[in-house]
Amino acid sequence: MSNGNKEFYVGVDLGGTKILAGIFSLKMELIGVAKISTKATRGAEAVMDRIVRCIYDAVDESDLSLKQVKGIGVGAPGAVDPETGVVIFAPNLDWHDVELQKELNRRLDVAVVAGNDCNVSTLGVYEKEFNSKPRNLLGIFLGTGIGGGLILNRELFLGCNYSAGELGHMVLDPNGPQCECGNKGCFEALASRTAIFARIHSAIEAGRKTVLTEILGPDLSNLRSGDLRRAIRRGDELVAAIVEEAAVYTGIATGNLINIFSPEVVVLGGGVIEALGCEMMPTIEKVAREHVLDGTFKRIQITASKLGDYAGITGAAILARTKWH
Amino acid sequence: MSNGNKEFYVGVDLGGTKILAGIFSLKMELIGVAKISTKATRGAEAVMDRIVRCIYDAVDESDLSLKQVKGIGVGAPGAVDPETGVVIFAPNLDWHDVELQKELNRRLDVAVVAGNDCNVSTLGVYEKEFNSKPRNLLGIFLGTGIGGGLILNRELFLGCNYSAGELGHMVLDPNGPQCECGNKGCFEALASRTAIFARIHSAIEAGRKTVLTEILGPDLSNLRSGDLRRAIRRGDELVAAIVEEAAVYTGIATGNLINIFSPEVVVLGGGVIEALGCEMMPTIEKVAREHVLDGTFKRIQITASKLGDYAGITGAAILARTKWH
Repeated sequence: MSNGNKEFYVGVDLGGTKILAGIFSLKMELIGVAKISTKATRGAEAVMDRIVRCIYDAVDESDLSLKQVKGIGVGAPGAVDPETGVVIFAPNLDWHDVELQKELNRRLDVAVVAGNDCNVSTLGVYEKEFNSKPRNLLGIFLGTGIGGGLILNRELFLGCNYSAGELGHMVLDPNGPQCECGNKGCFEALASRTAIFARIHSAIEAGRKTVLTEILGPDLSNLRSGDLRRAIRRGDELVAAIVEEAAVYTGIATGNLINIFSPEVVVLGGGVIEALGCEMMPTIEKVAREHVLDGTFKRIQITASKLGDYAGITGAAILARTKWH
Repeated sequence: MSNGNKEFYVGVDLGGTKILAGIFSLKMELIGVAKISTKATRGAEAVMDRIVRCIYDAVDESDLSLKQVKGIGVGAPGAVDPETGVVIFAPNLDWHDVELQKELNRRLDVAVVAGNDCNVSTLGVYEKEFNSKPRNLLGIFLGTGIGGGLILNRELFLGCNYSAGELGHMVLDPNGPQCECGNKGCFEALASRTAIFARIHSAIEAGRKTVLTEILGPDLSNLRSGDLRRAIRRGDELVAAIVEEAAVYTGIATGNLINIFSPEVVVLGGGVIEALGCEMMPTIEKVAREHVLDGTFKRIQITASKLGDYAGITGAAILARTKWH
């Protein structure tokens, strides 16, 4: 029973701006968390050292030792080879073929498994929130960018390049705004936090009024999704209209995906939904329903995730448990 | 050995305008075919009688007897319950909850299985053209409408309402032309034969010149996809531009779907591709590549099906063989 005293898993959510690590019991109860900034510009080696530091912080915060950890799961913002744990490509980190799994394993001497952040979050939502009950579930995450994950026939679906679920680059309007990927009118360029903020900035430059400038000053420094919610609740029509537009596009994307998959459940998550779920979800559901083919909406549920920021670490810990239970 | 002399399968492709039936050997070699018009306006009972007649015609054409048939597969243009073979909803036929499988079985006294036409065609292409080799394959069929089928982890994926693969109602441009489903800018409203013909008619009404009016007369009666190919080869710039536009939208849709699934193979088929594959495929592939996220196009093949009109009957016969081999 060499693993007898190893009764915890670590889940890591590696993002473009921050690293979040959580310690979980065997039953996936969250024991403690730690968070540090990513500092992606310092390069892959430095970021991996910071992941290690964040894991030690979370373990310490939980009054545990790394020796009690059975396995570590990491969600990374890119395409990850599920066999080797190599991050093939992660645009926000500017990573190409980084041996994340191997390097973390070397630094920590604990078993490590890596996956795509949105896939891993979807797995977390599927197992923790839905008890693995639906046969098919689709996760859509709206944050700085937009990504997704597919649970098909009760398993995470990765596709031949481990890049399935890149819903953010579904084109919804070929005449729409420029996306960082090089194309126009991607879902991400229409409904991500980046897209919403860009539209607010343009409107202010065009002379439109918003309470955001009263709250944050004329250049909206440190604008966050939560500020949008506060502005809407104070009756800000500009912000309400821009958030509504993002919700309409999210509804169209959701309808498209239901027509393609007919999944039992569509779950929305990520920072934008966490902050603006109450404002956006009714429109998302209404527009999605309007776009689903007649007679094929039965048994389908569209809902916001309750895991919020912890979907990624939960899913990453579950990924580790799946491998070393 | 009651099945000892039963060495053939029948595949039926039930369309909105025509019914096609084919007799296949155990190795899925096509022995003979028959075709009659659907006459959908006469109602479900009459159409089912016509399916029976078409099957008898195909059996007779092949110098066989129905007693030699092991099973019959039918592809229907709508959502079909795979357990009961009930056509839940088929808009082109105006069918709701028609017991196709049970009724044909009663009329013919041969085992019958039914599925969605595009799903069944995808199965046919997957097994006959690709020898079931790719792990994941996506079929996109451009005809009067647009539909698709998903082979995921080597199996037909149906979704919770058996309506997965309704790719034709993926919105590609919310400001695009009206679709029959009630929404705007669906893939089907931009790139189906119906959409292409509508754009040609509008252009002619607006005074644009085309050789099509020389070939077919001013009202373009009996316009078919093949006429478009002939017009393009005679240098018709209007037709070339309209077909090119449909190819661009098909490329965007294909790119979206690759981002979502990362399948090994995307196969295009249906009457439009059958007639205009040479003209459209280079643009479809180029535009799809431009829309797939950097670094995730490896190992992916985009190709036109070689089965043409016979994809549906082949897949339907394979569906029957899968059930009664």
